[in-house]
Amino acid sequence: MFNQAKNQNPHHVVIVGGGFGGLYAAQALKKAPVKVTLIDKRNFHLFQPLLYQVATGELSPADISSPLRGVLSDQKNAQVLMGEVIGVDPQQQTLKLQNTELSYDTLIVATGVSHHYFGNDQWAKKAPGLKTIEDAMEMRRRILLAFEAAEKEPDPEKRRAWLTFVLVGGGPTGVELAGALAELAYNTLKSDFRHINTSETKILLLEGMDRILPPYPPQLSAKAQSSLERLGVTVQTGTLVTTIEDEQVTIRRGEQIEQISAKTILWAAGMKASAMGEALARSTGAQLDRVGRVIVNQDLSVGGYSNIFVIGDLANFPHQYKNGQPLPGVAPVAMQEGLYVANLIRKRLKGETLPPFHYRDYGNLAVIGRNSAVVDLGFVKFSGFLAWLAWIFVHIFFLIEFDNKLVVMIQWAWNYFTRKRGARLITNPVAWLSMGIEEERDSRTPIKV
Amino acid sequence: MFNQAKNQNPHHVVIVGGGFGGLYAAQALKKAPVKVTLIDKRNFHLFQPLLYQVATGELSPADISSPLRGVLSDQKNAQVLMGEVIGVDPQQQTLKLQNTELSYDTLIVATGVSHHYFGNDQWAKKAPGLKTIEDAMEMRRRILLAFEAAEKEPDPEKRRAWLTFVLVGGGPTGVELAGALAELAYNTLKSDFRHINTSETKILLLEGMDRILPPYPPQLSAKAQSSLERLGVTVQTGTLVTTIEDEQVTIRRGEQIEQISAKTILWAAGMKASAMGEALARSTGAQLDRVGRVIVNQDLSVGGYSNIFVIGDLANFPHQYKNGQPLPGVAPVAMQEGLYVANLIRKRLKGETLPPFHYRDYGNLAVIGRNSAVVDLGFVKFSGFLAWLAWIFVHIFFLIEFDNKLVVMIQWAWNYFTRKRGARLITNPVAWLSMGIEEERDSRTPIKV
Repeated sequence: MFNQAKNQNPHHVVIVGGGFGGLYAAQALKKAPVKVTLIDKRNFHLFQPLLYQVATGELSPADISSPLRGVLSDQKNAQVLMGEVIGVDPQQQTLKLQNTELSYDTLIVATGVSHHYFGNDQWAKKAPGLKTIEDAMEMRRRILLAFEAAEKEPDPEKRRAWLTFVLVGGGPTGVELAGALAELAYNTLKSDFRHINTSETKILLLEGMDRILPPYPPQLSAKAQSSLERLGVTVQTGTLVTTIEDEQVTIRRGEQIEQISAKTILWAAGMKASAMGEALARSTGAQLDRVGRVIVNQDLSVGGYSNIFVIGDLANFPHQYKNGQPLPGVAPVAMQEGLYVANLIRKRLKGETLPPFHYRDYGNLAVIGRNSAVVDLGFVKFSGFLAWLAWIFVHIFFLIEFDNKLVVMIQWAWNYFTRKRGARLITNPVAWLSMGIEEERDSRTPIKV
Repeated sequence: MFNQAKNQNPHHVVIVGGGFGGLYAAQALKKAPVKVTLIDKRNFHLFQPLLYQVATGELSPADISSPLRGVLSDQKNAQVLMGEVIGVDPQQQTLKLQNTELSYDTLIVATGVSHHYFGNDQWAKKAPGLKTIEDAMEMRRRILLAFEAAEKEPDPEKRRAWLTFVLVGGGPTGVELAGALAELAYNTLKSDFRHINTSETKILLLEGMDRILPPYPPQLSAKAQSSLERLGVTVQTGTLVTTIEDEQVTIRRGEQIEQISAKTILWAAGMKASAMGEALARSTGAQLDRVGRVIVNQDLSVGGYSNIFVIGDLANFPHQYKNGQPLPGVAPVAMQEGLYVANLIRKRLKGETLPPFHYRDYGNLAVIGRNSAVVDLGFVKFSGFLAWLAWIFVHIFFLIEFDNKLVVMIQWAWNYFTRKRGARLITNPVAWLSMGIEEERDSRTPIKV
């Protein structure tokens, strides 16, 4: 079936999701004798590893986004469709979109994950997560408004609450966010206010496991923690959040219960597979894991369908464990999976096949503040300034478009030498101005989760 | 009264509005023996002349915004207050803010204007204007989504309506927007779509007067019009909009009535003074003009209050006419007024005075597309590529912060040589995806006017 094009049309590869996995698969099919349709809800590819820099005012949304149509405009066998997939019929080989249907020969699903509140969805409004540009702008708004509110607040206790930031989750996002927030509070904003001292800002990074950056080797976790502490971040490991109220976080550390007054709570923990996982499970009988990711076959196909693939964060690839876990939800895994599936499709069209997918781990990177990072390349682990340069190089290198690389490089150089941040604007401030911020924060449009 | 500081505090200058007028006044008071408080609803200064480039995806919001606190952080005698002024008491010399009061010795009001629909406020949702960053993002969203919708639209007539853009108002904003839109449709997006030909896009620029750019000399208006037409824009002068319906604009040209089917209507006509004008009129007895601007004295003070000034777009300065009109609402006027009032305050504190304000007109600039502009320096008028370079130079020069200058220069150079635009992302796409875009466009949050 796979090899037989319906009528005379070329083999139609439909890719759902324009993240790292989907976009790399589409681009790798450039010279293949196929027609590629890339479907995404958004019109741009997002470089998610730098989203925290948008949230902290270092970069603008456009700096880390590339219009999908622009990226693929020269790829004649590819078209982009802005739309949302709501169902799959594997028998008919059709996708159901909102007002239309689309048939495919091969389907690649790469719709990723969103953040997740472990069954406490009411926390979403109080502790926004960081997956989309809108999330990042909402975080930026809350962070900057907190300093504005503190500046106006005469009551010392309330002022302290405005200057307390709680970050839940000590993975790469939480660590990088904490470092950037420390830079912002202790350097960038230092001389901007007249009634508060931003060096009194308290930044708390909470992690449930016994160390931050749990997927990294323990010595790098320790380095990262000491770098953060040098920057002024308070790191609390082995700490669980039990409730989040409007201005109060309750945490548990072993037997110890503690209340923290904080007006700004940011979520960098937990994830949940996108709804496409369930749609696939229903229609193909594929298994889902506990967070809703699709458990894929050795060649990344799902269930009994050799022409349906799941790649990227949405895939749970259980055939190659890393530290007892399935492959992590990071960009390099998604890219390699996208390339593998593209290759497999080309091979199959020639009647050939490929050995099972195998992830080649080139290492891990996380940045901590202005000139420190941790790098784990497997054969070598290092941290500090050199690691920071490596981090910069890799992140610039993988920005999809050249103009992004250039602008981001300049923004970073500028931020580095001046400790300024150009992108500190608060947009959509709504009616917070009336100082009755607490009430209004909750009545705003809920954060999209 | 003016010269006597209350108790031992320094003379307190309160400036409302951080646009060109307010910010220049604040900066010019750097070494004066005064305390400056700059109040703004937003936390950033906006370089409004480039807002249309944000609306058309050439620049990011942060590129044309400078955080007010950052700009003034080294000016020790200045503080920034993010807040909204709702009233003035000239007798008590106090300003009423939402939850607090503030007393002043000298008050400078520079709150500007917003766009205006000539009594047709219901048009605001259908034809958004361009005054704020949020306006620009909304315009960008509508423009880019129109092409996305056209790409999916099977009906040729509806597709044509998606590809028709009507711009109301042939002033500098309308002209620059039309030029940028033509570049976008006919160049940038040319190879991005597979089912539409973006060169079929129709861009209509409507102007009620008998020529576009009415404040400019007639020969430059003619040049601008022919440049626009060369780019593919249809210019209709002497044309009034009589109704705007969801997908239909009715226009009148003399006796002739015409209906245009267009899904995207952009507003670049009409303005209305901000509410501070009325508040001042109520409390000081100052006269307002027909659009609500405050008619100021020769030294920019209002009514009988020598310590209350109105500057910038909100001021109607009737003592120096230009082409039979009061001074235009452009950045150079606001800047010179800001500097004048700052100077006057310094002089007065020394017991001296200044001759009345006189605007020195260095000329007008407007850009048309990728490499053409019109320049009127009074003693010389020119257009074309050289004018375009002059326009670029002036706009880069007046960007407040150096990092903005650098990034904007690179973005422009990049856009110029590649005709690409990095900032083409659609944010907040809401539920438009269901193709029932027409209905949902109207149920969205109304545009802030």
